[in-house]
Amino acid sequence: MMELIDSGLLSPVRAGTRIETAVSDRAFLQAMLDAEVALARAQARLGTVPRSAAEAIARAADADRFDLRTLALAARDTANPVVAMVKELTRAVAAVDPAAAEYVHQGSTSQDIVDTGVMLVAARALRIIRADLARVDVALVGLAARHRDTPMAGRTLALQAVPTTFGLKAAGWRQLVVDACRRIDPVLMTGLPTSLGGAAGTLAGYLEQGRLGGRFPDDPQRYAEALEEAFAAETGLARSVLPWHSLRTPMADLAAVLSFTAAGLGKMAVDVQNLTRTEVGEVTEPSVSGRGGSSAMPHKRNPVLATLIRTAAIQVPVFATAVTQCLVAEDERSGGGWQAEWQPLRECLRLVGGAAFTAVELTEGLGVHPQRMLENLSLTGGQVVSERLAIRLAAGVGREKAKQLVSDAAAAARADGRPLHMVLAERSVVRGMLGPKELVELCDPAEYTGAAPSLVDRALAGTGQEGDGEGDEVEGARPRARRCPRG
Amino acid sequence: MMELIDSGLLSPVRAGTRIETAVSDRAFLQAMLDAEVALARAQARLGTVPRSAAEAIARAADADRFDLRTLALAARDTANPVVAMVKELTRAVAAVDPAAAEYVHQGSTSQDIVDTGVMLVAARALRIIRADLARVDVALVGLAARHRDTPMAGRTLALQAVPTTFGLKAAGWRQLVVDACRRIDPVLMTGLPTSLGGAAGTLAGYLEQGRLGGRFPDDPQRYAEALEEAFAAETGLARSVLPWHSLRTPMADLAAVLSFTAAGLGKMAVDVQNLTRTEVGEVTEPSVSGRGGSSAMPHKRNPVLATLIRTAAIQVPVFATAVTQCLVAEDERSGGGWQAEWQPLRECLRLVGGAAFTAVELTEGLGVHPQRMLENLSLTGGQVVSERLAIRLAAGVGREKAKQLVSDAAAAARADGRPLHMVLAERSVVRGMLGPKELVELCDPAEYTGAAPSLVDRALAGTGQEGDGEGDEVEGARPRARRCPRG
Amino acid sequence: MMELIDSGLLSPVRAGTRIETAVSDRAFLQAMLDAEVALARAQARLGTVPRSAAEAIARAADADRFDLRTLALAARDTANPVVAMVKELTRAVAAVDPAAAEYVHQGSTSQDIVDTGVMLVAARALRIIRADLARVDVALVGLAARHRDTPMAGRTLALQAVPTTFGLKAAGWRQLVVDACRRIDPVLMTGLPTSLGGAAGTLAGYLEQGRLGGRFPDDPQRYAEALEEAFAAETGLARSVLPWHSLRTPMADLAAVLSFTAAGLGKMAVDVQNLTRTEVGEVTEPSVSGRGGSSAMPHKRNPVLATLIRTAAIQVPVFATAVTQCLVAEDERSGGGWQAEWQPLRECLRLVGGAAFTAVELTEGLGVHPQRMLENLSLTGGQVVSERLAIRLAAGVGREKAKQLVSDAAAAARADGRPLHMVLAERSVVRGMLGPKELVELCDPAEYTGAAPSLVDRALAGTGQEGDGEGDEVEGARPRARRCPRG
Amino acid sequence: MMELIDSGLLSPVRAGTRIETAVSDRAFLQAMLDAEVALARAQARLGTVPRSAAEAIARAADADRFDLRTLALAARDTANPVVAMVKELTRAVAAVDPAAAEYVHQGSTSQDIVDTGVMLVAARALRIIRADLARVDVALVGLAARHRDTPMAGRTLALQAVPTTFGLKAAGWRQLVVDACRRIDPVLMTGLPTSLGGAAGTLAGYLEQGRLGGRFPDDPQRYAEALEEAFAAETGLARSVLPWHSLRTPMADLAAVLSFTAAGLGKMAVDVQNLTRTEVGEVTEPSVSGRGGSSAMPHKRNPVLATLIRTAAIQVPVFATAVTQCLVAEDERSGGGWQAEWQPLRECLRLVGGAAFTAVELTEGLGVHPQRMLENLSLTGGQVVSERLAIRLAAGVGREKAKQLVSDAAAAARADGRPLHMVLAERSVVRGMLGPKELVELCDPAEYTGAAPSLVDRALAGTGQEGDGEGDEVEGARPRARRCPRG
Repeated sequence: MMELIDSGLLSPVRAGTRIETAVSDRAFLQAMLDAEVALARAQARLGTVPRSAAEAIARAADADRFDLRTLALAARDTANPVVAMVKELTRAVAAVDPAAAEYVHQGSTSQDIVDTGVMLVAARALRIIRADLARVDVALVGLAARHRDTPMAGRTLALQAVPTTFGLKAAGWRQLVVDACRRIDPVLMTGLPTSLGGAAGTLAGYLEQGRLGGRFPDDPQRYAEALEEAFAAETGLARSVLPWHSLRTPMADLAAVLSFTAAGLGKMAVDVQNLTRTEVGEVTEPSVSGRGGSSAMPHKRNPVLATLIRTAAIQVPVFATAVTQCLVAEDERSGGGWQAEWQPLRECLRLVGGAAFTAVELTEGLGVHPQRMLENLSLTGGQVVSERLAIRLAAGVGREKAKQLVSDAAAAARADGRPLHMVLAERSVVRGMLGPKELVELCDPAEYTGAAPSLVDRALAGTGQEGDGEGDEVEGARPRARRCPRG
Repeated sequence: MMELIDSGLLSPVRAGTRIETAVSDRAFLQAMLDAEVALARAQARLGTVPRSAAEAIARAADADRFDLRTLALAARDTANPVVAMVKELTRAVAAVDPAAAEYVHQGSTSQDIVDTGVMLVAARALRIIRADLARVDVALVGLAARHRDTPMAGRTLALQAVPTTFGLKAAGWRQLVVDACRRIDPVLMTGLPTSLGGAAGTLAGYLEQGRLGGRFPDDPQRYAEALEEAFAAETGLARSVLPWHSLRTPMADLAAVLSFTAAGLGKMAVDVQNLTRTEVGEVTEPSVSGRGGSSAMPHKRNPVLATLIRTAAIQVPVFATAVTQCLVAEDERSGGGWQAEWQPLRECLRLVGGAAFTAVELTEGLGVHPQRMLENLSLTGGQVVSERLAIRLAAGVGREKAKQLVSDAAAAARADGRPLHMVLAERSVVRGMLGPKELVELCDPAEYTGAAPSLVDRALAGTGQEGDGEGDEVEGARPRARRCPRG
Repeated sequence: MMELIDSGLLSPVRAGTRIETAVSDRAFLQAMLDAEVALARAQARLGTVPRSAAEAIARAADADRFDLRTLALAARDTANPVVAMVKELTRAVAAVDPAAAEYVHQGSTSQDIVDTGVMLVAARALRIIRADLARVDVALVGLAARHRDTPMAGRTLALQAVPTTFGLKAAGWRQLVVDACRRIDPVLMTGLPTSLGGAAGTLAGYLEQGRLGGRFPDDPQRYAEALEEAFAAETGLARSVLPWHSLRTPMADLAAVLSFTAAGLGKMAVDVQNLTRTEVGEVTEPSVSGRGGSSAMPHKRNPVLATLIRTAAIQVPVFATAVTQCLVAEDERSGGGWQAEWQPLRECLRLVGGAAFTAVELTEGLGVHPQRMLENLSLTGGQVVSERLAIRLAAGVGREKAKQLVSDAAAAARADGRPLHMVLAERSVVRGMLGPKELVELCDPAEYTGAAPSLVDRALAGTGQEGDGEGDEVEGARPRARRCPRG
Repeated sequence: MMELIDSGLLSPVRAGTRIETAVSDRAFLQAMLDAEVALARAQARLGTVPRSAAEAIARAADADRFDLRTLALAARDTANPVVAMVKELTRAVAAVDPAAAEYVHQGSTSQDIVDTGVMLVAARALRIIRADLARVDVALVGLAARHRDTPMAGRTLALQAVPTTFGLKAAGWRQLVVDACRRIDPVLMTGLPTSLGGAAGTLAGYLEQGRLGGRFPDDPQRYAEALEEAFAAETGLARSVLPWHSLRTPMADLAAVLSFTAAGLGKMAVDVQNLTRTEVGEVTEPSVSGRGGSSAMPHKRNPVLATLIRTAAIQVPVFATAVTQCLVAEDERSGGGWQAEWQPLRECLRLVGGAAFTAVELTEGLGVHPQRMLENLSLTGGQVVSERLAIRLAAGVGREKAKQLVSDAAAAARADGRPLHMVLAERSVVRGMLGPKELVELCDPAEYTGAAPSLVDRALAGTGQEGDGEGDEVEGARPRARRCPRG
């Protein structure tokens, strides 16, 4: 069996994180067993399974009693693991309570058990992800608040554009986390339903049992409704309008939120990588002994956390596509379209879980270097504020001329390595409009961060971390940052 | 220019549908011009642009005055079409009002214009899609209601499994349409924001203008807030918490809902194809003169509408992946990650629009053949109800034995081509439990559609099309089908 | 550790197949250790590592001595497993030969070891896949030869079009297998190179060692060449023109051939599914006790092998995309772009390996039902040969008129349920051209299989299974089917 | 019709490049018409079409006579444009030669015409791409040769690792171009076959015509062979072993090479972007008036060419996936799986064509700044050669101790901002091994470029641009760079 260990060797982003066991084969098996137990108990509520039988089933439904490999191999015969699992479960129940064994998987179908199991696993995994995102949120709120006014270069198409603040950058990363949580939460609340449809989504098998006894022998429809309700109650999952055997909305929703979350964290990761570049040096990953070492180069401290997160950001949107495509499922159950969902969904959950965990480490310990940010802002001799100068000069000479003037001056400054304000001060048309002191001020990048600080306040509104500049905004109009990550 | 016509030749699913012009290059250009106008008017509200200038800009901002090809070619120099468009717009304004020309694109940046334009196009396109989905919804509600009780084979892994009704099948297709609408509507309501961030998302350029005049010269933050509000009001779009230059949540949301909608319609399409198969023959596409003809085979009436829809269902989830991946955007604006979104997003909108339009034709005219459905149900000599028999016999002989008994009888029936009830009637153990008449009844597929009819009622609740079996369900517990497609 | 078993539960297509162990974490670890050994031995050939040290390293480099989980967890600190592995290996060597420990991983870098290891794993996995494809090839050649003349309906857009033969269908499936082999073989021969670049692809570390001793202390370039050659010889892998740290051609090639192979087998799988449909019934999967059973429906024999293969065909092309995208790797080693390749590549190898193995079972035991094929051909009352009739009648009445005539007759035949030849015989214009007997013949589907049999011969040329109609073809012109699957 | 212009506004990477017209709707139409002409002429060779009729068809088969939009709209009725095109073509032929009109599309099927047309378009497009890649190759060979010895930082995981040369970097970019050409060329030579299968791939319609007259009335198989040969000769395309209606190998091959080419160029693009960063400044894009300008920031010269190329590199691998997935096509022609290929394939061709063209501009004019490269190499005070020092010191104190020593010294150097050689010179253990002058030399990055220069020579071997260090390599062993880009 050691041959089959998935140790995380090829996927360090999630190695050793909580998500691994939450989405392991064993976890899937246990979730499917939980579905069988919930079904038996739901039927017991309605009188079609003796309560004692349901409890006998519950006692036997322990994943540790099953041999995963045997089930997996048997799954080749039926293209799903439920047939063999039910056989084993029945045997285990029969060993202690032969009568109860008759009630295992009563009226059910493989897909009800697998899909309900998948939803249980997804719910458990999403809660882990959600908890880690809440920690990332706290860390990023802190970074954004602390660096609300820390000037740094805003960069577009690889070049310094105009100044911004590191607080706004962190608030942006956090906003993606908030957005992710706002998409995950409704899925967790109402988007993960039980599957209860029977062989082809008509509940016929369940109804047939209901006809043979139970609380509503003469009203099968009522029995069906009551069974759905009881099954949902037992599992803690939602109910769906219709059996969803080949209506794969819940899977598509999961794919969408997982893809979004991974890519959102990935945006932060590539930013951290670029800010870490030797030539930029504006942030460093948390320093932990041994981390970031290289097998060849003693001096390196690689941004490994961002690297790990980025591995998830590259993979998840693609894996999620496989899940989404399975929506195009023929008939009442697709031969292949259904079964192809399992592995990519698990991989998405696992990678997002690993990325969220890794993002906690990254954001809680990220080193920020305001001095280096300032130095970088000065690299272009003030050109990073050329926009501002063009606007100011336009008031005097018109826009086109102003733009040309600043553009030429910027080129000259670049060529000579002189500060932009000096070059400009030599132009008579400029001198007529702006004094040297004013020019120096206008060329100070730290004075041209625009609304960055107040945007940070807005984004952090309600977190208890926003600045003081709060009270006077245009009332009513302002979009509030949602607070879901706290919950 | 004729060389550049995108006639739809390679994408017939959308050829000639309304969506084509809504997402054409011209529509994008007009939407970007609309963004410029909205910006100028918003600034006019705040006093930083003269109202007359804003109106001069509005008069000039007509896509028909621009040469699209010239702009597209110029876009190669800047990797986006705005720089050239602004130049042309400025020239056009200057021709009639030189002073007004100074105010074109004031304080702005290419991305604000492109992204706001993209949101306007997306809003217009989604409304078209939404309207067609509402028609599909009506058509499917009608089919589901009419065929609430029409028995047909439920099929899993390509084989007949147990009976269902065509009404439930249609209700399932419709549920995916409802689900799509429930995901599109919030995007339309609050998910499509203006972009207003300036060069690097700090609004610095706008603020600088505000400082030079206008309603709040001494309170730049208030100016920023007011400008955002006015811009949103002028465009009819939502506001975002933060400028979203490299926080691409709105694009990811669009990708997710479009992917879902295409795949949902695709599920219906593959079902229609399979039900249309010569050997199945349970549905036929609407008969229109000339449609479905083959260049070689005079007898064929190909299911072309389903075919067209499926082309979209194959392409969109993949194209949407390209959009989602762009979420991993470095810096304040990605060099490539941003610009790569445009074409795949347009393609997704266009294909989904075409698929929705095609689905209207398909669902409004779908031919349903209950007689053929019944004949197919009888193909297996009653084996399609083997589940039911196994359940009934289990009550007498236990589950394992019952299953084996039915399995053997089914094999014998298959081998001999005799009805299952006859084979079973010959087994003494069966005769002891069920009389021949009862056996015939139990083997009647039309009597084993389970909860299918009442599931149709539930799914159609609130549409005015549900059956009468409504009033007696377990109160409170029942999930209601949402009605959004009506709105 | 049991928590971490990847038993195949969620991926039955490969559960229990040889490929699983060939691409397991342990296999990757052993391959990386093999790379270290090959490096040490290559250096020993050149005198920069004592031969005894190389052998001490070889003795210690046994995956079973390492704890996979410990390595995986440590990999989080460096974003790859090599740093920790080298530390462990060094310790193990030092325990028996302290001096030898100095030579572990000499001059090397993590990427050289990982990439060489990945190539070794890929080579081993491809050979397994290749062997199974050869068996599939033999089975399909047999099916094609046996059913060279077995008429069946050719189907397009879900409808019967014109007749074909099952032999041609099987020959088509086989052609995709041949095509797959023709793409895999060159990758196996020359497409899997060692990685030997050192820290940033300059081999500087290796050269520095070479300068300190060895065969070419004064000619580092020659040392580099000799080391590359020796390393390739020790591993059995190819050499690359340049170190390929961020030139990921070998990975892209693997992704392409794996994607192709999975999709090619998937084509066969969907065909088998559609031919298995209850209403079609032209083929059945091999009957093995227990296989294809359903948890609910005793009568079903699901086409599970085709289902399993299709799961791979859905997943692999998407997963392969993740690998291909990593080609866009920044710098001399991407932080994320490199590490994101591992898991999707392994998944592609594993799924293709599983699909190929499953295809052996499927093709070696596929049941073919010529009688049912004939019955299905008669379903349309001869309409399946409408093309032929249109051509024949065109000779007399012109094409347009002939097409219309046949089209009308086909509609009438469909409406009345009468054979087409009868309907046609009643039309005077037809009677003037074709006698009733001739009409019956022309309407016989089995007589209108076109070149299908001779196409089978051509496709099977060189396999020893082709028919006799070989010798007289237009010489020189004919494309030969390649025979690579035999090799 | 102006509404339908695809001007390139949303895809500037290809706006105005030659590829646009080569893959336009008009080009597809003309190619399909060319296929009809080739078919008629091939049949004329065999006597089943009068030569004069074939020439009448050829004269009418001019795309400019057709209304693209009308055809596209009509394509909705048949899910492909051929039926309407044949009708129009027939009408046009009939107008001048009524008898000839009978021979249009004789015995053929839509797929033969579309697929042959697609192959013609692909061949024309690939030749354009190939020609541009040859120019990129020349430019990169020049850059690699000129900068064979220009030292720069090799970077891994975003950090400076060890020195390399810009020549090696350029040689690496070029190697990907060579690799792309080596994959494109065989596709161009033998991978683009005609499609000639008739209604369901049996050639039955063609054979039926052959039976009615022509050169081999009594030997249909021979007629089929001869027709295939003549059709291939007329089109200049290859022949396939079997009709490939649902055996989509040629499409998969196209998808693979286009994906590879786009991603390979994308690797260069991201490198250029990162080297262009304000803080790095080692390369600049060619300076063309107006290019790279920003709508807001006068000082910016954005790397727009790299940006454009990257848009293609992001999109193509994903679009290509859609094409590859269509390999899983059911039956003899998929309803949807076939038609979904067209648009993504065109997009792939167009984007790769645009990217290759853009790469010509980028590589022919790339500015390289060796001085800045040197400055950046000195940023870390010599730490970039820590690997070298660790190796040297290991000879004296053992590897572990040496690594620790250098690691500590690097940290101290980083902390104090002093050169590494000074810090090291203070350590007594170092002083015992290396003199200060030797330390300075060992710490000189320009002296530690390893095999970079000779790797450049090897990669450029045969291009006439390699250096002089050629003659003395280990004979026979050395992998040669292929020269295909020259051809």
